[in-house]
Amino acid sequence: MYRIGQGIDFHKLVEGREFWLGGVLIPHTKGALGHSDADVLLHAICDAMLGALSLGDIGQHFPDTDAAYKGIDSKILLQKTYELVNSKGYKLVNIDSTVLLQAPKIRKYVDSMRTTIAGILGLEVDDVSIKATTTEQLSFIGREEGIVATANVLLQKGM
Amino acid sequence: MYRIGQGIDFHKLVEGREFWLGGVLIPHTKGALGHSDADVLLHAICDAMLGALSLGDIGQHFPDTDAAYKGIDSKILLQKTYELVNSKGYKLVNIDSTVLLQAPKIRKYVDSMRTTIAGILGLEVDDVSIKATTTEQLSFIGREEGIVATANVLLQKGM
Amino acid sequence: MYRIGQGIDFHKLVEGREFWLGGVLIPHTKGALGHSDADVLLHAICDAMLGALSLGDIGQHFPDTDAAYKGIDSKILLQKTYELVNSKGYKLVNIDSTVLLQAPKIRKYVDSMRTTIAGILGLEVDDVSIKATTTEQLSFIGREEGIVATANVLLQKGM
Repeated sequence: MYRIGQGIDFHKLVEGREFWLGGVLIPHTKGALGHSDADVLLHAICDAMLGALSLGDIGQHFPDTDAAYKGIDSKILLQKTYELVNSKGYKLVNIDSTVLLQAPKIRKYVDSMRTTIAGILGLEVDDVSIKATTTEQLSFIGREEGIVATANVLLQKGM
Repeated sequence: MYRIGQGIDFHKLVEGREFWLGGVLIPHTKGALGHSDADVLLHAICDAMLGALSLGDIGQHFPDTDAAYKGIDSKILLQKTYELVNSKGYKLVNIDSTVLLQAPKIRKYVDSMRTTIAGILGLEVDDVSIKATTTEQLSFIGREEGIVATANVLLQKGM
Repeated sequence: MYRIGQGIDFHKLVEGREFWLGGVLIPHTKGALGHSDADVLLHAICDAMLGALSLGDIGQHFPDTDAAYKGIDSKILLQKTYELVNSKGYKLVNIDSTVLLQAPKIRKYVDSMRTTIAGILGLEVDDVSIKATTTEQLSFIGREEGIVATANVLLQKGM
């Protein structure tokens, strides 16, 4: 039995923040603003997993009003989310995701992100896809004011 | 046999309109502008079902130039769309969706939306997921000028 | 064994360019700007297929810095991408896609696009869905400065 999920997350990019993406720290003049480490890609993947099983969204499980999650490493949120998915009898088949950002180029960090995520989830690296695209200077993404990530997941029961 | 579908819908938010979302009337100072009740979430779900079976899109089935659909309750469109899906031998496995809006907070209405949608489609409530996110004040969504909903569906034949 | 993929692509719309979409030339005052023919829909479908199998993204396979791809017909990229998918033992079950643009109306070209894409991929036309929506004048899309396409694919192994 299969189920599908989708996630999308938005964060502002501002100076003076570390830029965490896909569980990896990327050298950049800006970072994503948020209560946790603001890892937009891990948040989108969490939301896709929660959505596939109708378990709410990341804001419900890890509220940004809760001091416990201030500055938290989103890798912990990813692991907790997948434990919840597993507890319902489901496993990930594959993740496909896209990061929308104008700068910096993240291609050289993508394999490190995939290895990090696959490690946390106990998946093969080839079951975790991360793509990236600019918006060709269009929108708040093109103006480097923000970053968006989208993810789709396929889950299977009793795999 | 499975098939996947995706839907996305955009509406302006304006004063002087009722705010219908996921089949539920939400108290707010603005509502979505449109020919029907402009329920962006139900429209995205309809489009995802139509798309999964290559049946066109909601604008073709329920044209906004047709007086018959002026002010129509989108729950009727949802029901008609699913009847079409059923007539092709398919059933929904699960729906995952996300509403992108800056305000108001809709979490307290989400279970009512899920119950409403599941009732129309003859699904379990746990097969209907509705998530919500702000865009962190970014874009027309962040400026409260508009609202967007995205949906993904998984269909199965002869279930 | 199934896998899912997602793709999204953005291009500016500018005067003095041919407007290629879904493999079809559409009469319009503007066209999409890009290194290739800038067919945003075919690019989104390619990215969805690559993403489903964690094969990177279209920018890696067909770099816009490579003179070999200058002005290239994206139908060639689509064919090459699907050959790669086939070489991994996978076939497409179905494609669902949405084009986000304010103008022109593309509905009358959609069946031609579907036939073109299905022909390249060896699919039935009913396995290729193309939907379209405006953004109700909102965002760079509504201002006719750009066009976006999204695609989801379902792949199956050893079908």
